[in-house]
Amino acid sequence: MYFDHAAATPLDSRVVAAMQPFFSDNFFNPSSPYAPAVDVRRAYRSAKQDIARAIGGSADDIIITAGATESINLALKGVGGHVVTTAIEHHAVLETAKQGEYTAVPVDANGIVSVDALRTAIRDDTKIISVALANNEIGTVQPLRAIAEMVREVRRERREAGSRTPIYLHSDASQGVGQLDVHVARLGVDLLTLNGAKMYGPKQVGILWRASDVVLRPQLNGGGQEQGLRSGTENVAGTVGLAKALCLMSEHRVYETGRLRQLRDTLQQRLIDAFPDAVVSGHQKHRLAGHLHISFPGLDAERVIFALEARQIYVATGSACAANKGSRSHVLEAIGLAPEIADGSLRLTLGHLNNEENTARAADIIIEVIQSEYKRAGR
Amino acid sequence: MYFDHAAATPLDSRVVAAMQPFFSDNFFNPSSPYAPAVDVRRAYRSAKQDIARAIGGSADDIIITAGATESINLALKGVGGHVVTTAIEHHAVLETAKQGEYTAVPVDANGIVSVDALRTAIRDDTKIISVALANNEIGTVQPLRAIAEMVREVRRERREAGSRTPIYLHSDASQGVGQLDVHVARLGVDLLTLNGAKMYGPKQVGILWRASDVVLRPQLNGGGQEQGLRSGTENVAGTVGLAKALCLMSEHRVYETGRLRQLRDTLQQRLIDAFPDAVVSGHQKHRLAGHLHISFPGLDAERVIFALEARQIYVATGSACAANKGSRSHVLEAIGLAPEIADGSLRLTLGHLNNEENTARAADIIIEVIQSEYKRAGR
Repeated sequence: MYFDHAAATPLDSRVVAAMQPFFSDNFFNPSSPYAPAVDVRRAYRSAKQDIARAIGGSADDIIITAGATESINLALKGVGGHVVTTAIEHHAVLETAKQGEYTAVPVDANGIVSVDALRTAIRDDTKIISVALANNEIGTVQPLRAIAEMVREVRRERREAGSRTPIYLHSDASQGVGQLDVHVARLGVDLLTLNGAKMYGPKQVGILWRASDVVLRPQLNGGGQEQGLRSGTENVAGTVGLAKALCLMSEHRVYETGRLRQLRDTLQQRLIDAFPDAVVSGHQKHRLAGHLHISFPGLDAERVIFALEARQIYVATGSACAANKGSRSHVLEAIGLAPEIADGSLRLTLGHLNNEENTARAADIIIEVIQSEYKRAGR
Repeated sequence: MYFDHAAATPLDSRVVAAMQPFFSDNFFNPSSPYAPAVDVRRAYRSAKQDIARAIGGSADDIIITAGATESINLALKGVGGHVVTTAIEHHAVLETAKQGEYTAVPVDANGIVSVDALRTAIRDDTKIISVALANNEIGTVQPLRAIAEMVREVRRERREAGSRTPIYLHSDASQGVGQLDVHVARLGVDLLTLNGAKMYGPKQVGILWRASDVVLRPQLNGGGQEQGLRSGTENVAGTVGLAKALCLMSEHRVYETGRLRQLRDTLQQRLIDAFPDAVVSGHQKHRLAGHLHISFPGLDAERVIFALEARQIYVATGSACAANKGSRSHVLEAIGLAPEIADGSLRLTLGHLNNEENTARAADIIIEVIQSEYKRAGR
């Protein structure tokens, strides 16, 4: 009973099947001149075209990376200048932004960033705004189209004022990919990050798409692959796998989103019914369909996680990254969740491995475990 | 009949088998708290220990990257300062060095760099010397132990002079791994790069080992994985695969080196016998056992490659990276090979896919093709 799809997703067997031929048979270096290598180069190109089609971009504007962290580093450092972002971004954005000058704009209690606040934070030397499509801890989905409209307005104003400083909108859509539309034109972004590891695709493969007018400074120098923007022998198997995963996501998105929302809503309702003082975080409407961040005041979430683990239920407390550091989640702090509530938080993220039966069973066990924990704590 | 093992190696089936469990079953995020994720974390740790044992280092000093290019970028940019390197390094070293101040020391006609010349190039602000263990085009193996001895001497002198500027030796041993000893203490290096893609392991997985006293500035910021030196969710399957590949390499190194040397020497002799004016490049003694770089004066190597391709023989002209750019190889230029000879160069690199039978057959066909090309050119 795995409820931690935001931390990791299993490789879809169809993705493994798509990658397999490139392991030991079509293993050739795509830069080599002979026919079998040219075939590999074509397969790589074709995978990029599939990715491009899925996000509405052009294959030439896609850079394959080793995952979302590298894509984000390339976007922010590659564009340079002052960065405007939000207080609830993933560490990959915040830590990268910290390498230079940046402003992290606060969010409201639901985790939504205000377009006006972002706009106010923009300085004359701001070149990039980075806002994740959906937050990885609480699932809140940001008003990206409105942000994009604002960025276009700033761009127009700069142009009219004779400024030559570009301004771009980057979004890490890693968490949203199976549940939200990630079409670059509809989102209105100039740069987009996606991660194979969050879409039942291969780990350590990501993409950075950028509009063709975005000038990037490469961060990995070498053989000049990916139009000189990301050196290193191309990851053919990984890219073919990511393309397959992304196509499957797109194909099943509407159905899967409906299915996950229903499972999540039922689970949420059952937990709220059992514990009326539980606090659900994240925007109740603009939220990932499979995401449930719920806090049980006075509870020690870590104890709950281990009690659930003993019953073969796997859930997270905070994000994997925050957990890694043993510190309190900066996201929960930013939405103003009191520490004594934050400490009793579980993150349940639903996905392919969940169905009505195992979700209902998990709800029973979670309720039982929390009741026993509350009893133990003398409540 | 594949003779391009320096460009790419097929995944060993035992490596695929080692990786498989981590695709769809043990797919958990190693930072997650529950037991199956802890098992994944242990498997990751254990793979790092296997790698450490194979190179004689400590698991804590190993950083997993997305391949040699990233490892090299991390080593050079992470240490910073003036870089001393050789004129025949891989583009990953030269292009990264060019991002800051650097000196590329010339080599002799065999591709060997002089220890004295390296020493002379060291400035007060030099912090890193980067010399590949073996060259990827001509196979020449550098006198790394002597270079290491010199670097230690410079370090002593600096210390005695009261300087606090460190100086480290980095080596990209990607090309040498199955045929040379890559034990870090015996090589005397402070940083070592290895690449899964060149050892029948997974592509887009590399390691950077560094001695525990080497201070590195991370190049990928984010969740703080790899002791804060390389953020991004760990590549568990890839690391397990690389560890398996490296162990297999170590285990079979002595036997395989002997086998490849015999195949290569026979092939070289047959080609020289048939074309007495052919020029073999690279040091004749200090050279990778599976490497044969041979030039046929007056021949157009590209035509030969396509003629061989039609007979299912796959060989390279120059390195894959140089070929990518359609320019003449900087390595052949550095060893002073005349352009009209360089243009007729084939690189044959032997490995697992070669045996006595297919190498003998390839020799027949190569001789036949070159004879017919010479005839066509009116010679």
